[in-house]
Amino acid sequence: MEYESIKFKDEYEGNSIETFKDVSSEHEALNARLLIQAGFINQELAGVYSYTRLGYEVLNNIEEITRSHMRKVGNEVLLPALQPVDNWKITDRLDTVSSLFEARGANSLSRENNPSRYILGPTHEEIITPLAKKYIKSYRDFPVSFFQFQTKFRNEARPKSGLLRGREFLMKDMYSFHPDKEDMEEFYDRVKNEYTELFKDLGIGDDTFFTYASGGDFTDGFSHEFQTLLPNGEDMIYIDREKNVAYNEEIATPENEKRLGVSFQNLEKVPACEVANIFPLNLKYSKPFNLTYTDKDGTVKPVYMGCYGIGISRLMGVIAEKFADEKGLVWPENVAPAKFHIVTLANKEDEESYLLSQKLFDLIGSDALWDRRNRVSAGEKLRDADLIGCPYKVIISNRSISNKGVEVQKRSTGEKFYMSIGELIDNFGGPRRF
Amino acid sequence: MEYESIKFKDEYEGNSIETFKDVSSEHEALNARLLIQAGFINQELAGVYSYTRLGYEVLNNIEEITRSHMRKVGNEVLLPALQPVDNWKITDRLDTVSSLFEARGANSLSRENNPSRYILGPTHEEIITPLAKKYIKSYRDFPVSFFQFQTKFRNEARPKSGLLRGREFLMKDMYSFHPDKEDMEEFYDRVKNEYTELFKDLGIGDDTFFTYASGGDFTDGFSHEFQTLLPNGEDMIYIDREKNVAYNEEIATPENEKRLGVSFQNLEKVPACEVANIFPLNLKYSKPFNLTYTDKDGTVKPVYMGCYGIGISRLMGVIAEKFADEKGLVWPENVAPAKFHIVTLANKEDEESYLLSQKLFDLIGSDALWDRRNRVSAGEKLRDADLIGCPYKVIISNRSISNKGVEVQKRSTGEKFYMSIGELIDNFGGPRRF
Repeated sequence: MEYESIKFKDEYEGNSIETFKDVSSEHEALNARLLIQAGFINQELAGVYSYTRLGYEVLNNIEEITRSHMRKVGNEVLLPALQPVDNWKITDRLDTVSSLFEARGANSLSRENNPSRYILGPTHEEIITPLAKKYIKSYRDFPVSFFQFQTKFRNEARPKSGLLRGREFLMKDMYSFHPDKEDMEEFYDRVKNEYTELFKDLGIGDDTFFTYASGGDFTDGFSHEFQTLLPNGEDMIYIDREKNVAYNEEIATPENEKRLGVSFQNLEKVPACEVANIFPLNLKYSKPFNLTYTDKDGTVKPVYMGCYGIGISRLMGVIAEKFADEKGLVWPENVAPAKFHIVTLANKEDEESYLLSQKLFDLIGSDALWDRRNRVSAGEKLRDADLIGCPYKVIISNRSISNKGVEVQKRSTGEKFYMSIGELIDNFGGPRRF
Repeated sequence: MEYESIKFKDEYEGNSIETFKDVSSEHEALNARLLIQAGFINQELAGVYSYTRLGYEVLNNIEEITRSHMRKVGNEVLLPALQPVDNWKITDRLDTVSSLFEARGANSLSRENNPSRYILGPTHEEIITPLAKKYIKSYRDFPVSFFQFQTKFRNEARPKSGLLRGREFLMKDMYSFHPDKEDMEEFYDRVKNEYTELFKDLGIGDDTFFTYASGGDFTDGFSHEFQTLLPNGEDMIYIDREKNVAYNEEIATPENEKRLGVSFQNLEKVPACEVANIFPLNLKYSKPFNLTYTDKDGTVKPVYMGCYGIGISRLMGVIAEKFADEKGLVWPENVAPAKFHIVTLANKEDEESYLLSQKLFDLIGSDALWDRRNRVSAGEKLRDADLIGCPYKVIISNRSISNKGVEVQKRSTGEKFYMSIGELIDNFGGPRRF
């Protein structure tokens, strides 16, 4: 065995972890630059990224944590990316959505096969509304909601924000259906509370604010967002820390001050990134698709809808950018690709360090990276561990062995401790479980 | 409480299960007709389906079981659907792949935003090969392989096979990289063995055969498939049951008889559906992308590649179609949307049946559907349970209560038993765990 790779968890041995320190500065967004340097993503096109082994793990952690919350408020489904052009005519969005992609045969053979064109979904109201007609007939069928984790496509003009705004991205979208406005608003509150818990679980609860935003063409009232404080965020928000609520700059008018009973100029104005939104769609989509139900008294009424988005890949970018320091990434424990990063500072001939490393990996390997590279200097190994950003760096060397066993460094605070393997497990817990 | 829905597992209450008995016969494929009738999928376009709550659960079960095997032989990643046109020029496939889709702005606003066009990936050699260049430098980096679960797009001419061949479908694809042919062939065998175990886990092991097929333009030798016996399958294969191997009709030439040492006419010829393939790509993609490595002696050599596909959504169609009987779907236990389908044959006023049902659901609800509908006849409830096809139907009624407690019917054999709740758990196990 040559120990040439960083071993990833206790599974496949093949080398899949590399860091790329000389990433060109053409990546203007801090999150993209860091994630590429640390080997989490690779840019394939402007606004289009591959998730490599470490990056997929983080993306999947965010998805799984989100799923555990969404299953309390909805039914999971999976809708297609290819959508009928006709449905977009029905909602009058075919010629007006400026980021709309279409799919069609790429060459003459393919267009001979099938000359049709399709909309490549940036969102799924045009699919879920007609589908809901099959499930909703009477007042007894409410409330009902459907969510999915799905790849979305948007032809953004100049995507320069890394994972914060891409042409292809992973999104959780949910759509809810109601007999009236009151039922919609009640459900809306349930989702709001679930989102609040979710952002705590993701480690960004303290800096994520429920925010009033423009109602767009859906409602005379407001829509709502969750905004996470971020120096490079695209939005500016006014925060009321006392009431734990914020207002998007876009609604900062004297009229809305009266309506909301706030004074924007007395609030803190900060940059932030939208990580979720909840829209009262009201009748906007149920009307064109004629989605109705029969009420108790026999009358036929239109169905109220809400929609609830979370940018899963965007959250990865926000979390990466938000917690990073000058040494690299700093992942919150729930989101990290692994909880532990074991660094063996010894040549393979140094049997004691290797035996202790193997013993530790046998115990916590299901949630650890293990840097066993021989041809790499101690300094580079430690720098790579800081760059990758797992919560606990566990260093094994002659020095650590003469000092109780292992040296543990907490990535977020830089604190260092010498302890035995038993004490490591006692103090910091074993592998995570979701 | 009105108990108007079938409750799905122990999570969200909203109604998400409906059966649709009057599905039009325009769905020529048995799998699509059954899955639509039973409420697992919905057709959105020719060859494009939504997975509703029950269907998503099955699709996800197949994905998770496959993942557990793939993690033993590869690194999980996620590559994008949008691919650079230039990469398809490099491999000379831009004008020759007859099912190739492209994506571009759908309206004038969008094309003003960004006039570029992209290939919508039917497969990912054009992405993974350049990406692998970042991970492969020397002979020490082998073997390495990457896999993903990803949505593929193919502009098929006339998709009429339901989930067996769609324009949008879920696929597991893996790509492996090797210093030479021998290493590739060794790895190839590891994947073959892992696939064999996978198909056992999915419940189709007995009827799935490792099959020799055409090497296409990749190799002078053969490629290989796993073919599952299926009356409506697109392929014909010759099975050698003694050697547990099969041959695709496409290679049934006198020349190949000699090469393989078999006599096709002495073998059983049957229809089957390809569920997986493994290709020796050899140098086909590493050459145009100039993917090389430095060997021990300092010489620069080309990298050998293999690729390994499994149709995840196709498997759902194959399993649905293969085990179905005149009453509906019959899911193997690992794949079923839930293990138990509790049918309460009583009005809600019938307190004893409801109390016993609730008690059972508290015990096994994490892996059960519960039909508590009031307005639906006993016969319809039982027919729906048969149509949906969970492995164990658990009927609770006055009769079952006077006969020890519950009546259990095994969907695959029709066997019926009366037993107590304790005996049910003892005999058939509790909820599944993956």
